[in-house]
Amino acid sequence: MTNEFPKDIMFCNEERAGERFIKRVWGKAPAFACCIGNTETGKIPGISAAGANPEITDFTPAADVELLYFGWCKCINGVPVTPDGIPTPGIITMSAIPLAKMPVFALNGGVNVRPNAPYFELDGKAGRDIRTGRALDDPRKVFERAVVVGEQLAATTEFLVVGESIAGGTTTALAVLTALGYDAQGKVSSSMPNNPHDLKTKVAQEGIEKAGGIERLKQDPLLAMAAVGDPMMPAAAGVIVGAGRRIPVLMAGGTQMAAVLAIVKGMDQSVLGNLAIGTTRWICEDRSSSIAGLVKQIGKVPILAANLDFSDSNFDGLRTYETGLVKEGVGAGGSSIAAILGSRGRIDRERIQQEIDGNYQRLMAKVR
Amino acid sequence: MTNEFPKDIMFCNEERAGERFIKRVWGKAPAFACCIGNTETGKIPGISAAGANPEITDFTPAADVELLYFGWCKCINGVPVTPDGIPTPGIITMSAIPLAKMPVFALNGGVNVRPNAPYFELDGKAGRDIRTGRALDDPRKVFERAVVVGEQLAATTEFLVVGESIAGGTTTALAVLTALGYDAQGKVSSSMPNNPHDLKTKVAQEGIEKAGGIERLKQDPLLAMAAVGDPMMPAAAGVIVGAGRRIPVLMAGGTQMAAVLAIVKGMDQSVLGNLAIGTTRWICEDRSSSIAGLVKQIGKVPILAANLDFSDSNFDGLRTYETGLVKEGVGAGGSSIAAILGSRGRIDRERIQQEIDGNYQRLMAKVR
Repeated sequence: MTNEFPKDIMFCNEERAGERFIKRVWGKAPAFACCIGNTETGKIPGISAAGANPEITDFTPAADVELLYFGWCKCINGVPVTPDGIPTPGIITMSAIPLAKMPVFALNGGVNVRPNAPYFELDGKAGRDIRTGRALDDPRKVFERAVVVGEQLAATTEFLVVGESIAGGTTTALAVLTALGYDAQGKVSSSMPNNPHDLKTKVAQEGIEKAGGIERLKQDPLLAMAAVGDPMMPAAAGVIVGAGRRIPVLMAGGTQMAAVLAIVKGMDQSVLGNLAIGTTRWICEDRSSSIAGLVKQIGKVPILAANLDFSDSNFDGLRTYETGLVKEGVGAGGSSIAAILGSRGRIDRERIQQEIDGNYQRLMAKVR
Repeated sequence: MTNEFPKDIMFCNEERAGERFIKRVWGKAPAFACCIGNTETGKIPGISAAGANPEITDFTPAADVELLYFGWCKCINGVPVTPDGIPTPGIITMSAIPLAKMPVFALNGGVNVRPNAPYFELDGKAGRDIRTGRALDDPRKVFERAVVVGEQLAATTEFLVVGESIAGGTTTALAVLTALGYDAQGKVSSSMPNNPHDLKTKVAQEGIEKAGGIERLKQDPLLAMAAVGDPMMPAAAGVIVGAGRRIPVLMAGGTQMAAVLAIVKGMDQSVLGNLAIGTTRWICEDRSSSIAGLVKQIGKVPILAANLDFSDSNFDGLRTYETGLVKEGVGAGGSSIAAILGSRGRIDRERIQQEIDGNYQRLMAKVR
C-alpha cells in the first residue's frame, strides 16, 4: 500500500480507525454475506421504495439474492425497482462482487418469498408490523445460528462484508435504535425522494409503547428486536459477531447498519474493534439523515464510503441516484469498497461504474 | 512433505493418483461439507443400522450435524446409535474436525427432521421408498443449488471434504449404481453386522423395474436419482461438481460415495481429476463389500483410507468398530484424512483416536 489511501474511498467517521481498518484488509480476499428478511412494516403505505408497490416488496430480498448469484432475477421479471422505476442497488453489488472476486452467501433471517438459490436457513420467520410491539418471535435463535455461520465463514475468509436486503428496514432501524436508548429521530435515511421522518417516528413510537416503552427494552437487544425489529437484524448481528471475533468485518449498508451495530454492541462489544461500516457517498452526504450522528453514539467505529458518482452514466435510471433516491442497499457501498481494497486499489470507481453501466444495459434490454 | 507418505493413510485404489492428490492438499486448509437427507428406504426393516430403530433414523442426520457444530445433539438425547448401541461415526468426524481446523457447512438435500443449527437450504424434500420407482421429485433443482454452494466454498477454501449422513444410503447407492449400468451387486457396504445384500438387491430391483428398467435410466443420473436415489445424492454430487471445477475435493464416505461419483461423472466428468474418495480402513478391508470394485468401473479415482484402529480403545462401543459394525459415515474417514494431510502429518492416527476416546467418554457420561 502506498502512503496515499485509495482516492475512491471517503472517510465519514473516525478517520484514523478507518485508515487502520483499510490497512488490515488491503489486498485481502473478502466474502460477501447478504442477510435477508421481510417485515409487514415495509408494507405500510409511504414507508419503503424497495419495490414498485407495497405488496411486491416481499419479493425484493429474494430477487436481490438471485441477482447476485445468477445476474438476473428468477422470482420476478426484471429487477426490483422503486415506484419511480429506479433499479435496485443490487445492480451495484452484482457489479462489484466479481471485481472483488467475492463468494456470496445468503442468510435467511425470515422471509415470505424464498430465493431460487441456496441460502443459510436460520429458521426465522418474517416480521410483523412493528406497531404490534411484537415484531419477531425468536430473535435469539436466529442470532445464535447466524453466529455459527459467522464462525464458519471466518475460518475460510480474510474479511467479511455483510449486506442486507429488506424493505422497510430504516423504519425498524429507527425503532430499534430508539428502543435501545439512542437519539435516532430524523437520523435514519430513506430510499424515497422525501424521507418520511414523521411517519417513521409515529410507527416506531407506536410499537415501542405497545411493547412497554424504552425503559423496558433498552437494556436488551433481543427484547428490542422482538418488539420492534426486523428479521434481517438478528441474522446480520449474529454473522457479524461470529465472524468479528476473528476477522475484520465491513458492515455494508446505510443507517440500518447503525441499528445492527447497536445490537452487536449489546450482544458482544468485544468485536467492535474489528468492525467498520461501509456505505455510499449518497448516504454520507445525505442531508435528510445522519449515519455519523448515529454511529458516534454507539462506538468508535469508522464509516467508509464508496465515492460512486453516476452523474456521467449513460442511463437515466442510474443518474437518478444522484438526486438522492435509493442511496444504498444490498451492501452496494460496502461491496464496492471491498472491490477497491481487496484489489489494492487496482479496481477503482470508474471500473466499478463501467461494470454497473454494462449490467444495467443488459438487464434493461432483457425487460423490454 | 518428506519422501514418505503419511503412515496412517492407506491407498486402496489408484495409488499413484492418490499420491498426487495427497501432494496437492498437503498442508492445505480444508473445509467440511456434510450433506444430509432422509429416505423412507432407510425404514424398511433390516436395511439400516443408522438409528436404534427405523423410525428414529429420521433424526440421525440432524443429530449428526448438531454433534459436529456443538459437540452434542439437540434433537435427540445422547447420540445416534445402532440397534446394538454402537455410536454414530459422527464421533470420529467431530474429533477430526477441530484437529483439521475445518469449518463445517451442512447441506440439506431433503430431510424430515431439520438440524437445530444453520444449514444450506437447497429446497429438496425427503425421499420416498425407492420401491415406488419415484424416489425424488426434483433432483435437478437440488443439484443445481448445490453446485452454486460448491462454487462459493471453492472460492474460500483450499480443498473441500464432502461427507454425508443418511440412513439407508447404501441401498439407494446400490440402486443408483445398478440403474446407471454398473455392476454393484454384492459390492455395497453396510452398517449392520451382516450385510443384507439379498434384501438390498430386491429393494433396488423393484424400484428400477417400477421406473422402467435400466435401459431407460442408465444415460441420465438425474433420471436415475429421481427413480431410485436419495436426497443426499444431488446435494453431494452438486457441491462436488461446483467445488471440483476449481479445487481438490475429498469425497468422504464408503460405497455411497461410489454412487455419488457415478452421478458426478454423468453430470460433469471434467471434474474427476480433482477428486479422491477418502474412507476408513474398515471399508477398504471389508470382505462383504468392494469399494474399489465399484470405483474402478467408474473412473481412475484414488481411494484413500484412514488407518484408524480402535482395538486399544478404552471403550467397548469403539472397540466394536473392529468387528465390522458401522464402518463409516458422516465423513469419518475423510475428515480424519483431512486432519492428517492438512497438518502435514503432525496430526496422526493416535492423536485423532485420543480425541475420539475423549469425546466418547464425555458423551456417554452425559447420557448416564
